[in-house]
Amino acid sequence: MNLKQFAKELNLSISAVSKALRDSHEISEKTKQMVLDKARELNYQVNPFASSLRKQKSKTIAVVIPEIDNNFFALAIKGVEMIAQEKGYHVLIYLTHEDVQKEVSVTKILQNGRVDGVMISVSSQTTDISHLQGLKENGIPLVFFDRVTEKITAPKITTDDYNSGIKATEHLIENGCEKIAFLSVSENLSISNKRLAGYVDTLKRNKINYDDKLIIRCSQNIEENKKILKKLLEKKIKPDGIFASVESLALTTYEVCNELNIKIPDDIKIIGFSNLRTASLLSPSLSTITQPAYEIGREAASILFTLIEKSGYNGIPENTVIKSTLTERKSTRK
Amino acid sequence: MNLKQFAKELNLSISAVSKALRDSHEISEKTKQMVLDKARELNYQVNPFASSLRKQKSKTIAVVIPEIDNNFFALAIKGVEMIAQEKGYHVLIYLTHEDVQKEVSVTKILQNGRVDGVMISVSSQTTDISHLQGLKENGIPLVFFDRVTEKITAPKITTDDYNSGIKATEHLIENGCEKIAFLSVSENLSISNKRLAGYVDTLKRNKINYDDKLIIRCSQNIEENKKILKKLLEKKIKPDGIFASVESLALTTYEVCNELNIKIPDDIKIIGFSNLRTASLLSPSLSTITQPAYEIGREAASILFTLIEKSGYNGIPENTVIKSTLTERKSTRK
Repeated sequence: MNLKQFAKELNLSISAVSKALRDSHEISEKTKQMVLDKARELNYQVNPFASSLRKQKSKTIAVVIPEIDNNFFALAIKGVEMIAQEKGYHVLIYLTHEDVQKEVSVTKILQNGRVDGVMISVSSQTTDISHLQGLKENGIPLVFFDRVTEKITAPKITTDDYNSGIKATEHLIENGCEKIAFLSVSENLSISNKRLAGYVDTLKRNKINYDDKLIIRCSQNIEENKKILKKLLEKKIKPDGIFASVESLALTTYEVCNELNIKIPDDIKIIGFSNLRTASLLSPSLSTITQPAYEIGREAASILFTLIEKSGYNGIPENTVIKSTLTERKSTRK
Repeated sequence: MNLKQFAKELNLSISAVSKALRDSHEISEKTKQMVLDKARELNYQVNPFASSLRKQKSKTIAVVIPEIDNNFFALAIKGVEMIAQEKGYHVLIYLTHEDVQKEVSVTKILQNGRVDGVMISVSSQTTDISHLQGLKENGIPLVFFDRVTEKITAPKITTDDYNSGIKATEHLIENGCEKIAFLSVSENLSISNKRLAGYVDTLKRNKINYDDKLIIRCSQNIEENKKILKKLLEKKIKPDGIFASVESLALTTYEVCNELNIKIPDDIKIIGFSNLRTASLLSPSLSTITQPAYEIGREAASILFTLIEKSGYNGIPENTVIKSTLTERKSTRK
């Protein structure tokens, strides 16, 4: 299809369509949007249009996250916001509540040029990633952080999840644990799977039998998780160590141990991924793997702005890894 | 100045200016913005223009908050976002980091019609409120939540701060405290002052002498606050009760007590405003006044959308109060 045919489809003059594509101020936003929509509908050289229309920058980026009442994401947003302020950019926040349908509808909205770039941490339900592929194909700069997907070529900023999985598991083994449960929220998330791989490989290296009944998949629902963990901890032969791969599961384990009168660390030792300020004030204080949440947010935003300014992925590293730290506290003491 | 003179100032035809003011699709966004800016510059009947131009809704609201790594604000945003999603609106988040200069520059940006409405929780430095007055005068619907200012007539959504101050102080007195310190972050914030008034009136009613050396003003800086609290708790005659009017100060008190080996609740009892999930898991568990953060966010957003839809403050209550709850735990036990 050439420009003439395309203009005919729109009932517009060639000149008007051409001006719309050059983002001329003579053309109303409404018409520009109509042209853009039609171009997409007809799959007519979408990218050049998008990029042309996007020359009028929105000075806005979007951050799409599963939840906000979570210290990791709150701190990451703080880092993003710091960089955005420096750049004179606005930050839109979208919460998916771990619902892939919400994630799909948010990305559809973002596809129309409302923002200059998108940072996303995918929901735990996300397996099909065509909505994210669509965003990228529409020429919207895209950066993943923390919960990334390997299926799309785009910059990804994470912590060293596999090594952190090793460190946490080794720490429990060194302190005498032989029957360690691994708690996670999803089998879809690559970060969970990397942490799990670190756990599995460490067990092997220490000649501890792997038992898939100790791999516990929890949900987003605290009450459900309590039931799952009660079942685990009421067993005759229960685990002597817990590796919570997300913060909320470490807290739920504490709550369930309190209810069942299981003593930490005497009866069971616990380590968790966590950005809680109160980790050191808990009863007992919680041993943690702490992700550099603020730095991950800053780095992801910096890379997104490089993408926006360079208008391309060339020369931008696909994987940026910022290390986590293990802090020993009383919950894993011998 | 009449329309003719105004059009001349802009080097535009009367018809073009008139169309711009009617938000006609024949006029480019750039020109409309230029007309709006000039109208403001010349103070030429700004409000009708603003409202006219705003008929083309941005479908975006802004939430301006002092910080995000705070459970209250994270939960409030969750509430805001839930309502915004229902309405098909986008949510911009701006952090002021308790810096009034940042608050001023954010409100200036928001004045130009980027959003259909603004929700704000003011910074602890904010005393002069002319920037917020300016936002309102420019016809941007404005709602305050939690940290409100009495100096502007606009909807305000808070918890029952005065009564919560009474409840917390009474609880400490009932459990034997006679020398209660009140910790806050700012003397500018109306919510701090209401909590303080509840504290002062309760002391009076219980015939306990008011001692202004026990009114402790802290900062945003954790290390500074530790120094301030160490000074307080290393005194020969130290308080036997602490009322932390913000969450982070309750945690700093715990940290300092741990360092100084002061036993909670035997040597000192502590109650704090807090939305921490871990309050019940702390050593010892923390007695709290819990604000309905999520509900406050939802309610503030609902009222903002009513304002946007009705285009006016008539019939909208100025003060909406949602009650906090006191939860007794070990930190105040006799």
